[in-house]
Amino acid sequence: MPKINQFPGAYIAENQDRFVDEMKQLLAIPSVSTLPDHAADCIACATFVANLLVSAGFQNVSELPTKGMPVVYGDLITDPKLPTVLIYGHYDVQPADPLDLWETPPFRPTIRDGHIYARGASDDKGQILAHIKAVEAFVKSGEPLPVNVKIIIEGEEEISSPSFSDFLAQNRERLQADVCLVSDTPMLSADQPSLCTSLRGIVYFEIKLIGASTDLHSGQNGGPAPNPIQGLAQLINQLKNEQNHVTIPGFYDDVLPIPPQTRSSIEALPVNAQTFATQIGAQGLTGESGFHVLEQLWYRPTLDCNGIWGGFTGIGSKTVIPSEASAKISMRLVRNQDPQKIATAFRSYIQANVPPAFKLEIKEFHSGAPVGVDADHPAVKAGLAAVTKAFHKQAILQGEGGSIPIIKLLESELNIPTILMGFNLPNDAIHAPNERFSLERFLNGIAASVYFMQFLSQSELAE
Amino acid sequence: MPKINQFPGAYIAENQDRFVDEMKQLLAIPSVSTLPDHAADCIACATFVANLLVSAGFQNVSELPTKGMPVVYGDLITDPKLPTVLIYGHYDVQPADPLDLWETPPFRPTIRDGHIYARGASDDKGQILAHIKAVEAFVKSGEPLPVNVKIIIEGEEEISSPSFSDFLAQNRERLQADVCLVSDTPMLSADQPSLCTSLRGIVYFEIKLIGASTDLHSGQNGGPAPNPIQGLAQLINQLKNEQNHVTIPGFYDDVLPIPPQTRSSIEALPVNAQTFATQIGAQGLTGESGFHVLEQLWYRPTLDCNGIWGGFTGIGSKTVIPSEASAKISMRLVRNQDPQKIATAFRSYIQANVPPAFKLEIKEFHSGAPVGVDADHPAVKAGLAAVTKAFHKQAILQGEGGSIPIIKLLESELNIPTILMGFNLPNDAIHAPNERFSLERFLNGIAASVYFMQFLSQSELAE
Repeated sequence: MPKINQFPGAYIAENQDRFVDEMKQLLAIPSVSTLPDHAADCIACATFVANLLVSAGFQNVSELPTKGMPVVYGDLITDPKLPTVLIYGHYDVQPADPLDLWETPPFRPTIRDGHIYARGASDDKGQILAHIKAVEAFVKSGEPLPVNVKIIIEGEEEISSPSFSDFLAQNRERLQADVCLVSDTPMLSADQPSLCTSLRGIVYFEIKLIGASTDLHSGQNGGPAPNPIQGLAQLINQLKNEQNHVTIPGFYDDVLPIPPQTRSSIEALPVNAQTFATQIGAQGLTGESGFHVLEQLWYRPTLDCNGIWGGFTGIGSKTVIPSEASAKISMRLVRNQDPQKIATAFRSYIQANVPPAFKLEIKEFHSGAPVGVDADHPAVKAGLAAVTKAFHKQAILQGEGGSIPIIKLLESELNIPTILMGFNLPNDAIHAPNERFSLERFLNGIAASVYFMQFLSQSELAE
Repeated sequence: MPKINQFPGAYIAENQDRFVDEMKQLLAIPSVSTLPDHAADCIACATFVANLLVSAGFQNVSELPTKGMPVVYGDLITDPKLPTVLIYGHYDVQPADPLDLWETPPFRPTIRDGHIYARGASDDKGQILAHIKAVEAFVKSGEPLPVNVKIIIEGEEEISSPSFSDFLAQNRERLQADVCLVSDTPMLSADQPSLCTSLRGIVYFEIKLIGASTDLHSGQNGGPAPNPIQGLAQLINQLKNEQNHVTIPGFYDDVLPIPPQTRSSIEALPVNAQTFATQIGAQGLTGESGFHVLEQLWYRPTLDCNGIWGGFTGIGSKTVIPSEASAKISMRLVRNQDPQKIATAFRSYIQANVPPAFKLEIKEFHSGAPVGVDADHPAVKAGLAAVTKAFHKQAILQGEGGSIPIIKLLESELNIPTILMGFNLPNDAIHAPNERFSLERFLNGIAASVYFMQFLSQSELAE
């Protein structure tokens, strides 16, 4: 907790019970965006959030229409010369199934062991509320807000933000800012505060190999008949070498080496191949030789088969040589890699290496560009200092292995970097039963948001 | 057709309309062994077949009980010193689905274009009837039957003959013979009569590779996390080399080279890699380098993946690294190979080559030994001469790529070789809609059975 005789500690301490009450009200609204039955709840939630913004002292609060759920907007422009922070969050939540695994009902927020348990507690209602309360703390304490703040809270993040691209294009002027601040990823661990500066991108394919024109009897045809499962195995096997490097020509061409300080910071963490293997319950790992497990996860591109199928997959035996076999293959990309370039390289390599007995079909699904901001960007420095101060331990920079396409949209539409300042923890069960958020981390999160604005106002961005 | 002024041509010509009528009655009984609703039809069919044996002049006709459907038995012992032929067939049939693809109802036998269309026409009612009528021809024409004949017709072949092993063990004495004669495989082609002297055996496995203890998010874990689909692809890829030879140590140790005359006979046929590829609708083949396509099919062992599955296999994309992936893998074995030896070699090789990050589970399903008889066995010579004479063209010896476990049972329980004298053709749609049997081939089949008995009685077996 921040010191309670200072700003913002005093304000947080005095008001924390009310903050938690408001969080409970927010979490009680079942704003499940993927279920049509909950459309009215989503709209009610947008209005509730808008009211929270008004109470916090935001101006120009409005529910901006989209072709789907409204985006709640508010701002507080102190001085056009000051840096402007655009806070992004979402008020919609994942479905709560399976309900019988919840210890208390998902939309009846309950406090136990210092945590609030409810669907959306960490993802993302609790986290976005921390930022709202940070602005409120400035306004209600009479402390001068040292930056301009804009906030957008959308209602379709859990269904891949189908309306958000149009919304950004239509509101580019209104959303102009110097940096985007998002709390929708977890910190590294309970005892290691961190700030995330990159997300991997993705390209995703499905490939199909076709041998004979119909399924064949494996006795009457086995030997000469081309087996697409085996052709596919051969093709997949050629995608990585014995060092687990991806063998697609040009795959690593645009990958930048990580700065020495990032490497040292990674190596200082109590995470290594052994701890990671234990964490995922595996007896061994298959990461690229020569890279720390966290570098493999955060700063190296990779390739995974996400699915494979062909032939007889039921119980027992069937003597078939299938006509076709398929696999889903995706690649995670890192900063400076171009999804289209990698997609083209993948296609060419697959086409060049498909065994000649087989026809090939390639389907491309979604792709998303990687995002990242330099470690020495003023906003990164401000964020790192803020998290360090609020969580009472030197924070580190981390990457995130997953992809959040919305972040790339923000970055490219608004041409600003994004700081991923998550407050929750990896074991807070987002998207799962018994989702939770630590109340202490919530209050520290408010402080971190306050400090970020303060440090940012003292940074080069303010010059 | 055999000459109609001689035996057996005259008898066949005079009685062919009645033979076809009887075949129609036999085919009209829906003796589908796999469907419990048809149990009464199966029993009725056994009785109908028993009556056919009696009418044909068989003695000691009986429906022998098993723990399942009865086996119909009959014999005609002319002289204990003569060679004894044991004819095997089955009166049960496959289900007729999909019914809407039949041009005429499956159990309303219909004649068009010189064929009788009905479920069971080729497999196996029509073929077994040819042998019954051959014996009838001897008896009713007053021609001395030159061999002893025993016949068994079971009712569970299409459900893998679950009662047959016990039946054989309990009736070993009764079934003693010098050679077993089976018509349950097709001839090579319409213009190439053939006699089959071998069937491949089989061993069938399921293997599973397990990486992490649960499915993982491919973004948050991709890189170091072991991917069992890729581990499986690697393992499968190691099972064959670039020449498509199986790499399991010892796999080919017991495989005998084929005799030069078998090779010449294969090479003289109008079948090659190109015609086979066209037949199965493939743009290329993947058989072992250095072997004729028919040698690959009939006389070489092979390995095929019959199924593979793991991860996300639905429509679209899901970013998962699955916890496990599985494959079904079977090997076809040739004469002189021991299924248990090959199964052990497979297990050892898989265990030795599983990538170290994965746990392995191996499950063994059924196995069946290969069967084969020497080309110079007197019964083979007699069979080849009989087929040549009945079908008016020099017959060749062929192998069969598939496996019929029942044949191995007959061979090992009774310790006699089996002659596979099929009369139908590969395109007669057995197990499929519009199954058929050529009436001309049926009548020639009767003659072939007669000639076989005659030639056998003149062979070394009779000495």
